[in-house]
Amino acid sequence: MDSHLLTATEVLARLQDGSLTVEQYAQSLLARIERRDSTIMAWAYLDPGYVLEQARILDKIPAEKRGPLHGVAIGVKDVIYTKRMPTQHNSPAYEGDAPEYDAGPIKILKAAGALLLGKTTTTEFAATKFGPKTRNPHGLARTPGGSSSGSAAAVSDFQAPIALGTQTGGSIIRPASFCGIYGLKPTWNSITREGVKFSALIYDTLGIFARSVEDLDLLAGVLGLADDSPPVGNFSVKGSKFAVVLTPVWAEAGPGTIAAMQRAVKLLRDNGAEVDEVTLPPEFNKMRQWYWTVLRSEGQTSFLPEYRADKEALHQTLIDQVENSTKISHAAHLEAFDNIAALRPVIDKIAKQYSAILTPSVPDVAPLGQETTGDQVFNTMWTALHVPVINIPGLKGEENMPVGVSLVAPRYHDRHLLGVAKAVGKIFEAEGGSNQ
Amino acid sequence: MDSHLLTATEVLARLQDGSLTVEQYAQSLLARIERRDSTIMAWAYLDPGYVLEQARILDKIPAEKRGPLHGVAIGVKDVIYTKRMPTQHNSPAYEGDAPEYDAGPIKILKAAGALLLGKTTTTEFAATKFGPKTRNPHGLARTPGGSSSGSAAAVSDFQAPIALGTQTGGSIIRPASFCGIYGLKPTWNSITREGVKFSALIYDTLGIFARSVEDLDLLAGVLGLADDSPPVGNFSVKGSKFAVVLTPVWAEAGPGTIAAMQRAVKLLRDNGAEVDEVTLPPEFNKMRQWYWTVLRSEGQTSFLPEYRADKEALHQTLIDQVENSTKISHAAHLEAFDNIAALRPVIDKIAKQYSAILTPSVPDVAPLGQETTGDQVFNTMWTALHVPVINIPGLKGEENMPVGVSLVAPRYHDRHLLGVAKAVGKIFEAEGGSNQ
Repeated sequence: MDSHLLTATEVLARLQDGSLTVEQYAQSLLARIERRDSTIMAWAYLDPGYVLEQARILDKIPAEKRGPLHGVAIGVKDVIYTKRMPTQHNSPAYEGDAPEYDAGPIKILKAAGALLLGKTTTTEFAATKFGPKTRNPHGLARTPGGSSSGSAAAVSDFQAPIALGTQTGGSIIRPASFCGIYGLKPTWNSITREGVKFSALIYDTLGIFARSVEDLDLLAGVLGLADDSPPVGNFSVKGSKFAVVLTPVWAEAGPGTIAAMQRAVKLLRDNGAEVDEVTLPPEFNKMRQWYWTVLRSEGQTSFLPEYRADKEALHQTLIDQVENSTKISHAAHLEAFDNIAALRPVIDKIAKQYSAILTPSVPDVAPLGQETTGDQVFNTMWTALHVPVINIPGLKGEENMPVGVSLVAPRYHDRHLLGVAKAVGKIFEAEGGSNQ
Repeated sequence: MDSHLLTATEVLARLQDGSLTVEQYAQSLLARIERRDSTIMAWAYLDPGYVLEQARILDKIPAEKRGPLHGVAIGVKDVIYTKRMPTQHNSPAYEGDAPEYDAGPIKILKAAGALLLGKTTTTEFAATKFGPKTRNPHGLARTPGGSSSGSAAAVSDFQAPIALGTQTGGSIIRPASFCGIYGLKPTWNSITREGVKFSALIYDTLGIFARSVEDLDLLAGVLGLADDSPPVGNFSVKGSKFAVVLTPVWAEAGPGTIAAMQRAVKLLRDNGAEVDEVTLPPEFNKMRQWYWTVLRSEGQTSFLPEYRADKEALHQTLIDQVENSTKISHAAHLEAFDNIAALRPVIDKIAKQYSAILTPSVPDVAPLGQETTGDQVFNTMWTALHVPVINIPGLKGEENMPVGVSLVAPRYHDRHLLGVAKAVGKIFEAEGGSNQ
């Protein structure tokens, strides 16, 4: 049985009704990985023995004691600490490093009965654009995006139903878009990031990849995401109201994204939604610069330990951050930090007027080559604003490559946004296949 | 030779001129600890063999390759991960837990040649007020404060010249005040806190205890603290200008703090400073409530992993945080989070008009008993505002117990503040011994 093709939610049902064992499921995934790993190269570490060991232990747990993720297989980005599996950050300084330390989200997933598959590839410390060798399953000559390269590629390639990633700029939304899957970057600090490598503390956010919104919602619940008012019933696009925010960096959009946004608006309208084009107040025009100022300043703090311990092992871009090569003053850093903070309630207020904001995920389809993981220009503002963002797949660009679009909601409206994403994703997946 | 009595700066000079070896120094500290540990109980873990092993390795490093902290002994609060020493958080869930994982600041200290002495006692996860058994060296029947109990007590008792702590509410400033030593809570995120247990991400700050400002400054430099403009020359109290901020919680001050603040103002004026009483704008009156709202909300995120893994092992106050027993909505959380953020540039602007703000460290001297570690009511506002704070010892309250006062500066003016603290501390230590 090809249970590796199932979503987590589908697998969970079969594991619960006894028609599938965790070991059978693990075997199916391992076989898929075995077939595909030399092509996709999504894994930084994967020990089939450890996977099967976990599976057998899970199978022995009596039905009434099984957790809400019993047997659900999860890939873990290799900047998230895990016992029994090394955490190497795609850095020579951490090669083979395997402290027996579980990050906060890993503790939660284990307590819920998840099956940890392995560690997925990342750019160095999830903080550069210079990619691992991982390939995009939709176009092997292209990047899967980054920095959560392996997590997005593995989920897209049916090697894992779910994978954890992180986003400091666009490292969930961009690879999800490039790989044609769902990606949730939740509200900042709504899920603990303890035990996840630091890049920029005020931005870094743990996120989730999946092939279905139900799976994102399943994980979101287990990881503790809860809105003030739980979303009621099934969200319907018909009669709803969306904002389209092209953002102050719309000039960076290529033909794939321009067409995808047009198509997305048309599909929403065709399905009965009101869609208003909204221009953000002018202070948002500075977000791009403020984002980078804070990123570089926080990087100075985050990478000082690695710099002091073994500077030679660091990529030049990280050395530049620590050495503050762009001479950013603390005064400039704080001005940017405070101005971004002041815009968080502003964007919440705007977003609350709509079911969601529709905005680009990426400039275009995944670029050719594995040298760079692409541009996060459309993601950084939302990351800095701490709002939840979901990449919706279904739309296509050149060579039939995926182009995602993002839905955005106010902070701590993550579960609401998942409800909206479910309805919108259903439409885009069914009708978005052509840009015509 | 009683080299354990020396400050880090003094030790460093002797290690550098060859009049002392690291091993001799380590032996002196270990002998002190051996004599005093059963009384003070400052250590959660200390392995003399590991201390001597490090000392011997450091002694073999040729003079020209020695780091800026060569041989300087440092105690490490037991919520900071360290290789070779367990990190147990004063939690039954982490008893004996020893992942081979160095926190960011530990990596920096090791690269600088520091000698790690051991792990110092803390309240559970540095997040409750219910203390370890550690005693205050100035009055054995009293608490040393918390949550950095062991770090403050060890430094105060000459068992370590320097120790690392953390502050989420008042866990550096309060124990420094109670134990009559210097404590620096630097600007938030100016030192990486990667590998330090999370309590409230937007507050948690790594800090340093020492018996001299020179030592704090030495550590601050190694840990990467740098102002935009390095402070020039020796700061002189004569001709300088201070603000006294009694804070909106001044009603909580007891006789020891009331007298200490009066004495501090008088000493500054007697030494030629202008001291203005400054009342903060009315929006600061809400800081106390906002602080707690955000703390409890962030605790919900931070302690979910421990709750899910082993709820029974958690203190009820942490269970209450995770279960949101006070029913704080995200709307209230965000309102508090954003309002605090808006006051950060306001306090910076006020503080920039003075050499420093003088404000209470504690309600009074250390309370009797080891059951609770005292009240952080005077510290939480500054922690939430991200500004650097230094506790200045020298003043005394009942039974000749220490009562510290705090100096505060704008964010990223930490080195400036250290310069001011050096001059002020000299005066308070020389003349502050009486409240009359």
